[in-house]
Amino acid sequence: METISNQKIKWIKSLHLKKNREKENLYIVEGEKIVNELIQNFPELIRLIVCKGSFAEKSLELKAIRKEFVFQANTEEMERISTLNTASTVLAVVEKFQTKAIDASKSLLLLDGIQDPGNLGTIIRTADWFGIDQILCSPTTVELYNSKTLQATMGSFMRVNVQYEDLKPFLIENQEKVYAALMDGIPYQQISKENVEIIILGNEGNGISQALIPLLKNQITIKGKGKAESLNVGVACGILLSYFFSN
Amino acid sequence: METISNQKIKWIKSLHLKKNREKENLYIVEGEKIVNELIQNFPELIRLIVCKGSFAEKSLELKAIRKEFVFQANTEEMERISTLNTASTVLAVVEKFQTKAIDASKSLLLLDGIQDPGNLGTIIRTADWFGIDQILCSPTTVELYNSKTLQATMGSFMRVNVQYEDLKPFLIENQEKVYAALMDGIPYQQISKENVEIIILGNEGNGISQALIPLLKNQITIKGKGKAESLNVGVACGILLSYFFSN
Repeated sequence: METISNQKIKWIKSLHLKKNREKENLYIVEGEKIVNELIQNFPELIRLIVCKGSFAEKSLELKAIRKEFVFQANTEEMERISTLNTASTVLAVVEKFQTKAIDASKSLLLLDGIQDPGNLGTIIRTADWFGIDQILCSPTTVELYNSKTLQATMGSFMRVNVQYEDLKPFLIENQEKVYAALMDGIPYQQISKENVEIIILGNEGNGISQALIPLLKNQITIKGKGKAESLNVGVACGILLSYFFSN
Repeated sequence: METISNQKIKWIKSLHLKKNREKENLYIVEGEKIVNELIQNFPELIRLIVCKGSFAEKSLELKAIRKEFVFQANTEEMERISTLNTASTVLAVVEKFQTKAIDASKSLLLLDGIQDPGNLGTIIRTADWFGIDQILCSPTTVELYNSKTLQATMGSFMRVNVQYEDLKPFLIENQEKVYAALMDGIPYQQISKENVEIIILGNEGNGISQALIPLLKNQITIKGKGKAESLNVGVACGILLSYFFSN
């Protein structure tokens, strides 16, 4: 196994920035469990850096990856390339998935301006749990390949097709089919489950953009009775998906 | 307004550690919106540090707090005392709430070993949304007064009574009334809503402790159909509370 070079360390560190991830079409994934899942599903997309003498070095299916794409690093080097506070014993540099079209005739989640990577990750994980395998995000939504987003998905980013594009054209074309989570819509429990295949959720602080509101024919709400101002958007997503997509 | 002393800066920094928060019975809250809410509700519990020349200095109801408990700091000092990556323009040192008994005859959430402060905060916020104002946590659950927990509650920690104690005695006494979220229980939609007043949720990775399982008569589940291994515990909490406590 080749030892990692200083040049490669620099290159991996450059991928901590979104603009470099976009230029190179690559991203970083860390942690034994999630990297193991990547190796099983997409061995051809990975370059791997493992910590010398670690358990990961023995337990991972390294043979699945071309020999020249596996590198060894020491603890100090792992810390330098890691995006985490505490470096993992394995880090993968992975090619981004190819763009795959969104199918408006199937179950679909739309996200408008979600800012927190943890929230986006949780939403992807929740969609995966309820069998929704496609999400269309506005360009103002946080990046899928942000390391915090990926961690929060708990591996679900491998199974859910997440695309970014202006939501307006889609909403114009699918006005009748889209159900929007807003503060003052109809209680979601009053909507017939069979009708709902597409749901849109908005930004943590401001909700769905003003520009899109006139396009939202079906407005639904999760009614509360305490004094909290709002629900976390990941929680709201879970409540709606569990109701509309459980059977 | 008195200028903050170096000694006071040191003292506030010591409160970044849980053991000192426990010794002094104090905690730290940051951010204009949440501090404003604290001033309105508990002015007598607060010492306030505001950034010189900031908007907060003018907009907050400083008169509500005894003059000798308000201090002025410059930007560099605010950064030293802050627990956040980006310091806020106002920081409050607050006396902890007094212990208040849990009422087992009212709606109640039990938490066993929640580790992530963001998850605990989100759960408190969600409970508040659905009108549940008491939570009983195992001593293994993360601290309420952790600054990340408080931030994630979005102010709901002021309205929800959160207590810590061994859950076993409570479960022994209330076996019939407690509904436990587990991976292989009855789908929650099959349970009659009127029966459920108390729900227990477990740790992010391991669920409810093995030692408590024999005490859980009513086991319920949120069934999925994708390939995700589990749901985030805050999301699971939201799904169950929305179902059982919406009306």
